[in-house]
Amino acid sequence: MAQARAMVERIGGGSPAHKARLTIRAGKHREHTAGLAPGYVQGNLCILPADYATEFAAFCQRNPKPCPLIGMSAPGDPCIPTLAQDLDIRTDVPLYRIFRHGKLADEPNDITDLWRDDLVTFVLGCSFSFEEALLDAGIPLHHIERGENVAMYKSNIDTVPAGRFGGKMVVSMRSMTPADAIRAVQITARFPNVHGAPVHLGLPHLIGIADLEQPFAGSRPAMQDNEIPVFWACGVTPQIAVEQARPPLCITHSPGCMVITDLLNADLALP
Amino acid sequence: MAQARAMVERIGGGSPAHKARLTIRAGKHREHTAGLAPGYVQGNLCILPADYATEFAAFCQRNPKPCPLIGMSAPGDPCIPTLAQDLDIRTDVPLYRIFRHGKLADEPNDITDLWRDDLVTFVLGCSFSFEEALLDAGIPLHHIERGENVAMYKSNIDTVPAGRFGGKMVVSMRSMTPADAIRAVQITARFPNVHGAPVHLGLPHLIGIADLEQPFAGSRPAMQDNEIPVFWACGVTPQIAVEQARPPLCITHSPGCMVITDLLNADLALP
Repeated sequence: MAQARAMVERIGGGSPAHKARLTIRAGKHREHTAGLAPGYVQGNLCILPADYATEFAAFCQRNPKPCPLIGMSAPGDPCIPTLAQDLDIRTDVPLYRIFRHGKLADEPNDITDLWRDDLVTFVLGCSFSFEEALLDAGIPLHHIERGENVAMYKSNIDTVPAGRFGGKMVVSMRSMTPADAIRAVQITARFPNVHGAPVHLGLPHLIGIADLEQPFAGSRPAMQDNEIPVFWACGVTPQIAVEQARPPLCITHSPGCMVITDLLNADLALP
Repeated sequence: MAQARAMVERIGGGSPAHKARLTIRAGKHREHTAGLAPGYVQGNLCILPADYATEFAAFCQRNPKPCPLIGMSAPGDPCIPTLAQDLDIRTDVPLYRIFRHGKLADEPNDITDLWRDDLVTFVLGCSFSFEEALLDAGIPLHHIERGENVAMYKSNIDTVPAGRFGGKMVVSMRSMTPADAIRAVQITARFPNVHGAPVHLGLPHLIGIADLEQPFAGSRPAMQDNEIPVFWACGVTPQIAVEQARPPLCITHSPGCMVITDLLNADLALP
């Protein structure tokens, strides 16, 4: 209700999110979206043919922490009005990645030429939203202070498979003091649509991470002596699942080049 | 509101909490109250002369995690109707401790003879309430499984002083898996009136605890390899503060022999 009301108040072209989409749609912004339209929800993108889409929808439903579904289109429809009235998923992301049979094949700025009547769009919540809430609460996030990507690891935590989609959960790690870790659990638990509460903290080897200084993706974390590692489910998890499922076509955003919606991060918080 | 409504529905003599108080008042139960009136809030007791009471009230207000005040009497009034209509604090606790100038002087079953017109009663929430919520959520608590007392430590965390009351925070420790620790933060954060979210986890030396196997009070914890230590503010903290303040008279419950109220543990939970 609150989401719908807040969105209605913001349609009409004036919102920073709308302006950001217009700039991207016009081809005038072709890089990462961090810092664009602050306060607005940005999402991970995954577009699949209909014969894979039902299984992927089930995969998301069964794995809400790594795959929190905030928007889904009807087959062939490039619009998701629940995320933004004007959103056209074929043009509104700065940089896309085209995967064919699980392999990266191209990285275009526009996918209008590739659009088909059987394509289904999924938009998944991303950690930008809860990181904003953590920063607002005064919790330092080292990768942001250093302008780096968050450290990501392949854990030994199994996702719940659905059809051809499955595999291990990818986790992102933010190190912080124990007192901040306790507050971070409380804060992020209020955001189930953007990965929610952490999945682990304190003992990396228990989730199959032997060396924190060797992330699978992102930057080395350089954790301090008075800090513990806190792990959240990561939106890269569905990419691993898609690589395993090897659909003939899958279109995602390029890392950091997200879908900008008209939802406010604050709208996603539980009371 | 919910507390008042629930209490009104339970007055009239029929509640297990009321029956437990009657038994104690009649001198038929003179030991610890764990397991009596399950589901009802039990509290820590501290009775002080009026000229210390204002400072102690301020100490509780400034330190809500170790000293969550759930009931307070007017000077000289042995009743606290907001906790239970029939409660008489002079007779309804199985075993009291009398401290004179900060030193234990006596341990009677009744304090009617000691009552004075200037005594003020404080009842503070205790961990029994949140432990029930943790057990209900399927989180094992080893000290309960073994029938032992929870391990307690003097931390290096300063309380916020108020007048003559101050000192270090005492913490209780429960070890659990990281996944359970994350859930325990979420669950206990909903119970601010009974110590709330943990104050620390993972790295005991950062709060001045060199050896977990040497608790200040309670039983040795015997933590497992796949567990981390999780620390909550402990209701023993005000006892340390009272010992330091050395009031001419202070009456507390004997450890484990609590004030049984008509409030339900569930009533204390935030939405």
